[in-house]
Amino acid sequence: MSEIIPQTLEKIEPVSSALQKKAQSRLDSLTKPLGSLGKLEELAKRYVSIRNNELASIKKISTVVFVADHGVTEEGISAYPSEVTPQMVFNFLNQGAAVNVLANHINAEVTIVDIGVKFNFKDHPDLLHRKISAGTKNFTREPSMTRSQAELAISTGIQIAEESAKNGVDILTTGEMGIGNTTSSSAIYSILGNTPVEAVTGRGTGIDDLTLQKKISVITKAIQLHQPDADDPMDILAKVGGFEIGGIAGLILGAAAKKIPVVADGFISGAGALLAFKMNPTVKDFVFPSHRSSEPGHKIFFDQLGYPPLLDLNMRLGEGTGALLAVNLIESAVKIYNEMATFQSAGVSTQK
Amino acid sequence: MSEIIPQTLEKIEPVSSALQKKAQSRLDSLTKPLGSLGKLEELAKRYVSIRNNELASIKKISTVVFVADHGVTEEGISAYPSEVTPQMVFNFLNQGAAVNVLANHINAEVTIVDIGVKFNFKDHPDLLHRKISAGTKNFTREPSMTRSQAELAISTGIQIAEESAKNGVDILTTGEMGIGNTTSSSAIYSILGNTPVEAVTGRGTGIDDLTLQKKISVITKAIQLHQPDADDPMDILAKVGGFEIGGIAGLILGAAAKKIPVVADGFISGAGALLAFKMNPTVKDFVFPSHRSSEPGHKIFFDQLGYPPLLDLNMRLGEGTGALLAVNLIESAVKIYNEMATFQSAGVSTQK
Repeated sequence: MSEIIPQTLEKIEPVSSALQKKAQSRLDSLTKPLGSLGKLEELAKRYVSIRNNELASIKKISTVVFVADHGVTEEGISAYPSEVTPQMVFNFLNQGAAVNVLANHINAEVTIVDIGVKFNFKDHPDLLHRKISAGTKNFTREPSMTRSQAELAISTGIQIAEESAKNGVDILTTGEMGIGNTTSSSAIYSILGNTPVEAVTGRGTGIDDLTLQKKISVITKAIQLHQPDADDPMDILAKVGGFEIGGIAGLILGAAAKKIPVVADGFISGAGALLAFKMNPTVKDFVFPSHRSSEPGHKIFFDQLGYPPLLDLNMRLGEGTGALLAVNLIESAVKIYNEMATFQSAGVSTQK
Repeated sequence: MSEIIPQTLEKIEPVSSALQKKAQSRLDSLTKPLGSLGKLEELAKRYVSIRNNELASIKKISTVVFVADHGVTEEGISAYPSEVTPQMVFNFLNQGAAVNVLANHINAEVTIVDIGVKFNFKDHPDLLHRKISAGTKNFTREPSMTRSQAELAISTGIQIAEESAKNGVDILTTGEMGIGNTTSSSAIYSILGNTPVEAVTGRGTGIDDLTLQKKISVITKAIQLHQPDADDPMDILAKVGGFEIGGIAGLILGAAAKKIPVVADGFISGAGALLAFKMNPTVKDFVFPSHRSSEPGHKIFFDQLGYPPLLDLNMRLGEGTGALLAVNLIESAVKIYNEMATFQSAGVSTQK
């Protein structure tokens, strides 16, 4: 196994409680009633403590969108045909997708990672060629990928986080695209959440009742067939996962090792996060929640993370859209922390 | 009574359903599964329909912070002394308060309106002198203000909205500051929400149990003493209101008359909005919700508005902070509407 994974897992250290106390004490000195900015104060405290810097600011925001295809789409479990995966890559590269609009709005850079699309793309400045294979296998018949491919997917994510650290990125956000990937993700939630398949599986991009029943049955059969080991995240990823989900898990691990806060997007990013949590629970210190997806299983991610969603807007698009909206709240929080006057500096009377 | 109020009420027209349909049809053509951006799509549809323009964008954001003192603070119902009201005005003018930081973050202009502070401020480019009186009267003994002062407060808000329209403002957000104003607001919620005082009254900036009991009893006695007419918003404002609450009501009415979307901040802004809703229910078409305040009575505002909060961050600061966070969601939504590619333009396959 590639050395990068165990090396990364070893590097992840909990966030200092002394830094958290220092941050809280500054928040309490600002001209507002104690605690009156609620979750913004929690966000600021987490962010500045992770960055190991009392007045850390957010200058460089980077969104990484992992894209891959899924062999299981042969079973007819999606509302859209597989061809939409490469078509959406072109849409991303042409700045036409929702993730582009929301990234431009907050001045975030977007990197598209072909980690397993069934299409060969030409070079483009926003595209990283990291294809592991042209889509996963149909996991109703054979494992999605080999164990060494699973390791490669995770290593790819780690390497991208390490590059981001070198480039001075202050905060990372996860994103993905891949027709069929809520099916793979639901399997992961069911196994790592120890929850029946039917309770975690939703309508993805908008399938009807009959297709939803088929999706549940396809996942149930695959789990019965492959018996993934719930204590071995690499086994789960290999048997029922997707390349983009492994990439997200790696990005989260790599971000934590480099002390970069990472905002998890929706349901599929949550599946990657669950794999990362299993590999090293300390990564949770570095992961920020974003929005609550319409997919029912997403609750498991928030329960394991230990933070509730910041936004609940009935969104179910993925790509990284929810995470980018959450970044604005984190930026607002960090600016409050850095820029507000204190009671002392402003000459404002404190509580009676 | 000043002619401006009835003239404004007459000008308010419902938002065109034809424009709403047109907006929905564009949203459905964008490269995302139908409805997958949830509340962002609703926000975009509302905004562009109000602006009467298929591709309306948000260029000029204006926050209006009405500031006033409250005679009822003599009863000891606040965690902070009255002197904090003018001290916070200086903090606003020096860019040190939370509202300044959040406004600067989204490039919004901030106007501070002295509509009734017990302090005489010198001129400042960000300050409007619109003082009606140096604070309200103590409403446990006499009405907060005269009926003509109440009308003047509302007219003041309307005039500021009209100025904003002249200056090309695309979206207004409400804000306020005034020690004691959750007490006055709770009285308004109780009357206009037909709900017992104890069910709508909260801890404001952070009072203890004993002070909370006193606050509830002070409001209950004032309502018994003055018997405000629940069908006459001007009577309610005069008897138990505050100048800043009247200003907010007027700003909302004026914004609706000029077809400017207006984002309501927290609990106190909600009290102003409830008065405006009573004067002309059609204004609701123009009012955007922002965050859910920790004050229990705030629910009445959302119920009457007919839209749930966009954010729920345990905030209870006021000033306009919640509304400014919500503006980012509205901006994101409007950019999605304007900037995303369509299935046709991007050559992406639609649903099977």
